[in-house]
Amino acid sequence: MRIAIDGMGGDNAPLEIVKGCVEAAKLIDEDLIIVGDREQIQNELDKYEYNPSQITILHAEDVITNDDAPVRAVRTKTESSLVKGLVLVKEGQADLFVSAGNTGAIMAGGLFILGRIQGIDRPAIAATYPVLGKGVALLVDSGANVECKPNNLLEFATMGSIYMQKVLDVEDPTVGLVNIGTEETKGTTVIKAAYELLQKSSINFIGNIEARDVPKGTCDVIVCDGFVGNVILKLTEGLAWTIFKLVKTKFTEGLLSKMGALLLAGKLKELKSEFDYSEYGGAPILGVKGAIVKMHGSSGSTAVKNAILRGIPYVRNNVVQTIQDSVLELEEVIISE
Amino acid sequence: MRIAIDGMGGDNAPLEIVKGCVEAAKLIDEDLIIVGDREQIQNELDKYEYNPSQITILHAEDVITNDDAPVRAVRTKTESSLVKGLVLVKEGQADLFVSAGNTGAIMAGGLFILGRIQGIDRPAIAATYPVLGKGVALLVDSGANVECKPNNLLEFATMGSIYMQKVLDVEDPTVGLVNIGTEETKGTTVIKAAYELLQKSSINFIGNIEARDVPKGTCDVIVCDGFVGNVILKLTEGLAWTIFKLVKTKFTEGLLSKMGALLLAGKLKELKSEFDYSEYGGAPILGVKGAIVKMHGSSGSTAVKNAILRGIPYVRNNVVQTIQDSVLELEEVIISE
Repeated sequence: MRIAIDGMGGDNAPLEIVKGCVEAAKLIDEDLIIVGDREQIQNELDKYEYNPSQITILHAEDVITNDDAPVRAVRTKTESSLVKGLVLVKEGQADLFVSAGNTGAIMAGGLFILGRIQGIDRPAIAATYPVLGKGVALLVDSGANVECKPNNLLEFATMGSIYMQKVLDVEDPTVGLVNIGTEETKGTTVIKAAYELLQKSSINFIGNIEARDVPKGTCDVIVCDGFVGNVILKLTEGLAWTIFKLVKTKFTEGLLSKMGALLLAGKLKELKSEFDYSEYGGAPILGVKGAIVKMHGSSGSTAVKNAILRGIPYVRNNVVQTIQDSVLELEEVIISE
Repeated sequence: MRIAIDGMGGDNAPLEIVKGCVEAAKLIDEDLIIVGDREQIQNELDKYEYNPSQITILHAEDVITNDDAPVRAVRTKTESSLVKGLVLVKEGQADLFVSAGNTGAIMAGGLFILGRIQGIDRPAIAATYPVLGKGVALLVDSGANVECKPNNLLEFATMGSIYMQKVLDVEDPTVGLVNIGTEETKGTTVIKAAYELLQKSSINFIGNIEARDVPKGTCDVIVCDGFVGNVILKLTEGLAWTIFKLVKTKFTEGLLSKMGALLLAGKLKELKSEFDYSEYGGAPILGVKGAIVKMHGSSGSTAVKNAILRGIPYVRNNVVQTIQDSVLELEEVIISE
């Protein structure tokens, strides 16, 4: 398997990206192709011991930044690391593309360069959501589609179930629909219609879930539109940050507390790592004809390493093909409406 | 001032409701009218020392439960504590109504019995959101209107600003619009149109905010539709619960940690109370012709007491009238579109 990595995407590129590639390479047999400015990337690589036949560079002149308008950037910056990486996948020269770059451009590139899986109306970003003490759930859509139709939510549920099964080894994953109450009659017109579609489908739909249940691990796949998904993801991030900061402040007030804090330092660190997105290996883009994993823009080397590692079963276990195979059934559910 | 309290609404009624009334009465001169089953309420009152000329009972035969369909319940259960309490406000026999009952029924009752303020299309629930270490922000709408038009969001912003100013003494409160990014071009069609309206209005609009900024106290008034508001409120609740539970588990593993936990017990308690909704005194319903404060269904006596206390400046500082006075300006902004 060959994995293309966007060497120039994200806040810490190429430094942390290259470091993450070197770390990942030690653990796997796969070949890594880092796409980006050859000189900069080689300079970073030279800091480490690595196998030059396992890690190679594909030079790319240009970079798509976070300030670039996604569609325009993908159309015009054809020499960018992001576009060249996706073209590698398109042409079968790589099996997976991993990037911490401009999210909109990754989505647009996925759509224009790889194309949608036929029958999937809206590809989605599936973020892994840390369920404290229980591993992860999958949040689909986590930001790609701010406005959704009921059939899009059914697609998200189906693609998320397949990913959970194939990549995270969850048998018959449970699916919940984010709503303002658990009753069938709650929510917007779109949510109510999606509820009916989900109930008719063959996925393991457990019904509506409230946002308070999201962190408790009530279901394996959390389905919502991209606006709500973005709110869930970012609020979780902001709130965890705020609480940990407050815990730290509180626990270092006064001498007794300082002693307590000292004793608990290790535990606090453990807690923080349970909340650390970088442990969870990025967010797959589901619904395009090829495997893409999107990382957080601020990803460090651990996040890069984990995104690469998580990408391997995504390719090996044929997630893209399985989604393609599920489309017919999806259409039956939608048409029976 | 006379304050009507729904003696039968919520999970802990009448016990905690009555206890909260007795606690509040000790701190204020206002008269309290507890509406509900006379015998049950009197039994509870008899447990405490109280001034029977300050706390009186208005008997109500019936109760609206959480299982009741809101509109139907308000129309048919005319002898319920909820309806009778609102009628007291309608008829000028009370200045404020406080209830921990069925949220939908409180909204429906507000609309049918008190009526909308003319020019306000959609009344909203304004929840106080704990900003750790900094007091509170106001989240409008926190669940009453799952689908909104741009002008509704402008109304929420205006009413929220007035409440923040009049009740929480925040001068020129800042207003943020919840969106998936801070750029003006982000979000749904409704959000983009609301952004333009907010920018034209005279409120202190700081632009889009991301959900990660909500707990950090980036602004005083957080504006969103009721679906997103519900997600924010419930996710905060669920996540805080999960994190505190995890902190507790982690901190009681092993002997050293147990010692640390013991030393920190007081601090943990302080932390939890910063997150305790009951400290913040309920959620005002804004946009109806009368003052209503809705409490969490599981409110205990402290929450009841605080809701009553917070309700006093809501009435005394003429929030309802000020909202009414702002309507003309609101209409100018909307019409200039």
